[in-house]
Amino acid sequence: MIEKILIANRGEIAVRIIRACREMGIRTVAVYSEADRDALHTQLADEAVCIGPAPSTDSYLNMQNIISATLVSGADAIHPGFGFLSENSRFARLCEQCNIVYIGPPSDVISRLGNKSEARNTMIKAGVPVIPGSKEAVYDVKEGAKIAKKIGYPVIIKAALGGGGKGMRVAQNPEEFEQSFQTARKEAGIAFGDETMYIEHFVKHPRHIEFQILADNYGNVIHLGERDCSIQRNHQKMIEESPSVALSAGLRKKMGEAAVRAAKAAGYRNAGTIEFLLEKSGAFYFMEMNTRIQVEHPVTEWVTGVDLIKEQIRIADGQKLGMKQKEVRISGHAIECRINAENPMKNFRPSPGTITDVHFPGGEGIRVDTAVYTGYQVPPCYDSMLAKLIVHGDSREEAIHKMKSALGEVIIKGVETNIDYQYSILNHPDFISGNIDVEFVTEAKGLLA
Amino acid sequence: MIEKILIANRGEIAVRIIRACREMGIRTVAVYSEADRDALHTQLADEAVCIGPAPSTDSYLNMQNIISATLVSGADAIHPGFGFLSENSRFARLCEQCNIVYIGPPSDVISRLGNKSEARNTMIKAGVPVIPGSKEAVYDVKEGAKIAKKIGYPVIIKAALGGGGKGMRVAQNPEEFEQSFQTARKEAGIAFGDETMYIEHFVKHPRHIEFQILADNYGNVIHLGERDCSIQRNHQKMIEESPSVALSAGLRKKMGEAAVRAAKAAGYRNAGTIEFLLEKSGAFYFMEMNTRIQVEHPVTEWVTGVDLIKEQIRIADGQKLGMKQKEVRISGHAIECRINAENPMKNFRPSPGTITDVHFPGGEGIRVDTAVYTGYQVPPCYDSMLAKLIVHGDSREEAIHKMKSALGEVIIKGVETNIDYQYSILNHPDFISGNIDVEFVTEAKGLLA
Repeated sequence: MIEKILIANRGEIAVRIIRACREMGIRTVAVYSEADRDALHTQLADEAVCIGPAPSTDSYLNMQNIISATLVSGADAIHPGFGFLSENSRFARLCEQCNIVYIGPPSDVISRLGNKSEARNTMIKAGVPVIPGSKEAVYDVKEGAKIAKKIGYPVIIKAALGGGGKGMRVAQNPEEFEQSFQTARKEAGIAFGDETMYIEHFVKHPRHIEFQILADNYGNVIHLGERDCSIQRNHQKMIEESPSVALSAGLRKKMGEAAVRAAKAAGYRNAGTIEFLLEKSGAFYFMEMNTRIQVEHPVTEWVTGVDLIKEQIRIADGQKLGMKQKEVRISGHAIECRINAENPMKNFRPSPGTITDVHFPGGEGIRVDTAVYTGYQVPPCYDSMLAKLIVHGDSREEAIHKMKSALGEVIIKGVETNIDYQYSILNHPDFISGNIDVEFVTEAKGLLA
Repeated sequence: MIEKILIANRGEIAVRIIRACREMGIRTVAVYSEADRDALHTQLADEAVCIGPAPSTDSYLNMQNIISATLVSGADAIHPGFGFLSENSRFARLCEQCNIVYIGPPSDVISRLGNKSEARNTMIKAGVPVIPGSKEAVYDVKEGAKIAKKIGYPVIIKAALGGGGKGMRVAQNPEEFEQSFQTARKEAGIAFGDETMYIEHFVKHPRHIEFQILADNYGNVIHLGERDCSIQRNHQKMIEESPSVALSAGLRKKMGEAAVRAAKAAGYRNAGTIEFLLEKSGAFYFMEMNTRIQVEHPVTEWVTGVDLIKEQIRIADGQKLGMKQKEVRISGHAIECRINAENPMKNFRPSPGTITDVHFPGGEGIRVDTAVYTGYQVPPCYDSMLAKLIVHGDSREEAIHKMKSALGEVIIKGVETNIDYQYSILNHPDFISGNIDVEFVTEAKGLLA
């Protein structure tokens, strides 16, 4: 039985996990950097251990310090949250070696799915559609150009270890290829210390549709429906919703079954997400599997009534899934807006500083996941997300009204935020009609930035 | 079609109603007393009208001023919230006379149900069980003593217009009767300007179980399950939950059917609540019908997924109920704690003042309904409720854990609160095992006050 969990993360997701543990009667250990001494997660946990200076590499990415903190505090398990070490197979392996329960899939599964080429081959074998592209890694520009020609333009060049838009470029035609390839490769080298690249056909104007998976240690795998995360800026999700207006019941069934097949083929365990690109034609392609909890997990929680963090802990604790696929019910419509400390009028430049006043809305159908408070100093060294505002309504229309109303109530003083910008998306006729794809933010007219 | 609603109330319920209106695209008019210039409801509404000085009689109870504000602002309808004018049949009649939609039942229904004797007779005719007691009003001590003897001690002496514990006394035996009667009558005279009294058999150690009713203008009446409001102090509810552990499926059906029968017999329309006393034996008695929304409505909203304020507005707008009885599903368990500005160590003396810091929890399964913010001045002239903290879990056990965890996160500085006291109730073995009745707070050992 897991009795004490160390949360290897910060911010709202650390708070989210601490709350789930408290409700389950599990003791918690927070880790914090020197910049996070006064952070909410540091205050809320039963114990808190400083793991180093502010830069992530010295603290939240410092595996040795985190493992030491776990052993010293006597925690049985580590929850990695998202970002930081959450998809690092070496960290998961280290946990396994130290007999610490890693709340996530086994290290070899993370490793296999983190390798884009291997993941792709696994999916092809499992009959899950993939985007036409290079099966093997590409290291050379000329070789890349040949492959791109064969696949057909436009193509997207991606770092093997990439994520969050880094090490990723689109080339519309052969003329653009060389520069795009070299820029992407350079970025990949800096961001991930690895220049392994892949080339794929670039699907034009797709939706980003992802399926939430739960898999226990006994071969039971279910999906909890989809999230539409098409509202993105530079491959960073901004607004997520469930269900997606683009999926008929038939398509949902087909994609959901493909997602379950994908997870089974990968030998997956715990909570994970299969990301697809969906074309207007209804064709869909496997993009990648995220082997961790997602930022946007609350929209799935609200339409299914399943607490995903608790499920993660239960699965890691060796419990069987509590529900079967046919028992999963999608009820109403949920939307999440990420509230960031950034200035949309200045190319979304992060806006760190001290929050001098903060007020969030509440009431029926409103959920706020945050770790900020009046007097909180938003550090410049971490990502700029301040809060997630999640709403639930009977219908998408009601959920949009609710989100607009809720955004209108948020007060955050002391830092710039994207609240007005988010409002302008929610108020856009194409968003309201559900006519969105991953290019929406780039192409829509009348947004605030 | 209702296009603009004036909210004849203040505090969190006014904010709750404003939010529902915004989400429905209905414009809102707040009314405020001079003490509430900076209140959240004043700020959030589309328009706000000052209706007089701080004392309620000069503002929130001033019918003329409220009707004038409605006519001047061009609102089509008035939502009375709870408390203040929400069960005043004269106010409802005034609305009817001025062609203002009153969001509640017709004035004659309020009047009939407000008269305890008439309500009782209506219930008897409808086959709804009532407590043995005086059918007619009692004005005289000696006459009362005779009736009490006939009914059987203990008896409860109640003001005809009473509520909230005022004008209400229990007499255990004939010796106590005279003083109890005279104290109750005196209180009634001061509080309600009316000394009409009733005497009933006093049901020992009952639970307070109430059923939420929705009734449209076309004869459709449904109930949305029960709320257990047994945790009370001086007849003031402190903690409410839904469903009640005391009700088997069979008893729920029986009581629910009685509640629907009661509402039909009264010619009820809009949202209302039938309050019952439930004995350990399973016998239950009609207590009264509340002809308005209740403070504790969120627990019902959470287990049923129905937005009661929106339903009230739709019904008042002439729409048919959107669901049938058999479509009502109770899912999981919800608990509400009322957070008051009061000092439990000093007999719950109200603690007005300026809130210098406030922080509420959020996240999965947490709802906060409040109108306070950092810098808000809690006025001494209104009731002391600062916030309602509502949680939802898969089970009662999970909901209790969640509430304890959530209470632990609340920070309110500048005024005393009952948070620790509420925690001590939630932590009490009898509460945890569900072994509660209306005497719990008085009799339980180990509570904080």
